[in-house]
Amino acid sequence: MRLPVSHSIRLRVGYAETDQMGVAHHAAHLVWFERARVELLREIGASYRELEAHGISMPVREARVRYRGPARFDDLLEVEATLREMRRVSCQFHYTVRQAEGGAPVAEGEITLAFCDASGRPIRNGPDRLRALIEETGTRG
Amino acid sequence: MRLPVSHSIRLRVGYAETDQMGVAHHAAHLVWFERARVELLREIGASYRELEAHGISMPVREARVRYRGPARFDDLLEVEATLREMRRVSCQFHYTVRQAEGGAPVAEGEITLAFCDASGRPIRNGPDRLRALIEETGTRG
Amino acid sequence: MRLPVSHSIRLRVGYAETDQMGVAHHAAHLVWFERARVELLREIGASYRELEAHGISMPVREARVRYRGPARFDDLLEVEATLREMRRVSCQFHYTVRQAEGGAPVAEGEITLAFCDASGRPIRNGPDRLRALIEETGTRG
Amino acid sequence: MRLPVSHSIRLRVGYAETDQMGVAHHAAHLVWFERARVELLREIGASYRELEAHGISMPVREARVRYRGPARFDDLLEVEATLREMRRVSCQFHYTVRQAEGGAPVAEGEITLAFCDASGRPIRNGPDRLRALIEETGTRG
Repeated sequence: MRLPVSHSIRLRVGYAETDQMGVAHHAAHLVWFERARVELLREIGASYRELEAHGISMPVREARVRYRGPARFDDLLEVEATLREMRRVSCQFHYTVRQAEGGAPVAEGEITLAFCDASGRPIRNGPDRLRALIEETGTRG
Repeated sequence: MRLPVSHSIRLRVGYAETDQMGVAHHAAHLVWFERARVELLREIGASYRELEAHGISMPVREARVRYRGPARFDDLLEVEATLREMRRVSCQFHYTVRQAEGGAPVAEGEITLAFCDASGRPIRNGPDRLRALIEETGTRG
Repeated sequence: MRLPVSHSIRLRVGYAETDQMGVAHHAAHLVWFERARVELLREIGASYRELEAHGISMPVREARVRYRGPARFDDLLEVEATLREMRRVSCQFHYTVRQAEGGAPVAEGEITLAFCDASGRPIRNGPDRLRALIEETGTRG
Repeated sequence: MRLPVSHSIRLRVGYAETDQMGVAHHAAHLVWFERARVELLREIGASYRELEAHGISMPVREARVRYRGPARFDDLLEVEATLREMRRVSCQFHYTVRQAEGGAPVAEGEITLAFCDASGRPIRNGPDRLRALIEETGTRG
């Protein structure tokens, strides 16, 4: 697998995600990043659910978001996740969120995740197991 | 333990709980109910965390909320939980939410919870184990 | 427009929606109902965003959910919303949530919404304005 | 007002905030930061609700969180917010989250907020209006 590898999803801003400023609350973006991350992993053959079922969890170690423009109720957004870097005990994803129509920037950010076992202890063979899953797919990256 | 048994908590409406209507989103009330339920259980000697640690979980089987008035950002609310009824496989809590200042009604509702084991299967000795915990406290109901 | 009128959406349970019981938290279902309601309204020609832009809001007056089975992380769900009844000052939607694969029941419920103006006061011409929007579409119900 | 100025709150991790990893979901921390920020502002005499009522909003421009340790259901946390820096169009808060008992680190981070008018356009007199409110209190910083 060659990095970076990217995948985009579309989602609509839900009413529950707005706050009284009339835009999506700033915590919602982390949830959108997570949705895009899960779909990117699925796309490259590594279901996050399967990972957990095999005793690997990927808790978030660091999150960073730069908010560029409003995302309002019912806006259709495009969220792109990019797996940028894979280290021994962690990996980093980059994200961009844009309005699906017109492409106006909404946010960008980075999430660093650790590789841990089921009880939350860091493991070192996470990247290998993730890569193994990814390489089984054969067709990407 | 004689039922009903009640307990009140106070909480402030957070910004993240509001939506673009300028009031707390209607799903927030279930979270407030849950906070009051946890504190009622603690008050009568039955830490919900301890319950789970002992292999008892209490998933929600039915929820009902009647919304009476707006709860706005930064409003201080009083949430009263009442354990009304204990049956073999479930129990029911009633809730009222009011403005702490002035007492204007915000919502009321009922939550029915099942007694289950750690894997989510219904159990019949849940009420006894809950009662045992409650009766250890000796001082209430 | 003849009632009832129904519409289904599919959505995936997100990681953020789970709780430590390993299933979607019971407040998530209200958010799913809301997403299905918004799409049903869009389907019949009544964008909820447009409604609000025209000074009509539809706050929730009553919510009821019966939980039938677990919804786990990454499960693909089918949420059907049915606009059942339209009264002078309110309307009622019914919902069913099922596993998209296999059809196992997850939940069902009802939400009653009021018709209000932008400042949250009940109005009586909400149903007419909603119907007008709906009838403009011409093709359904 | 001399910077930095700090304020701490205590809060309990709610069940709804956990995810299936058995810890608070990483988006919850932004909500805790927000709660501490609102209380810090109140403490120094600048109710955020009042700010908005006077036409000033403070949307988040950048968020950064470093996760240091698990926060589990029912853990009592201490969240300290520090207003570090005030610039012409923005200000920056730093946060630390610790276990109230024992002091184990949970997270730390920074949030940068802009000063905007009610329609979300940046304003330049936000810091002055915030300072005016703060200085009225007279007793701190």
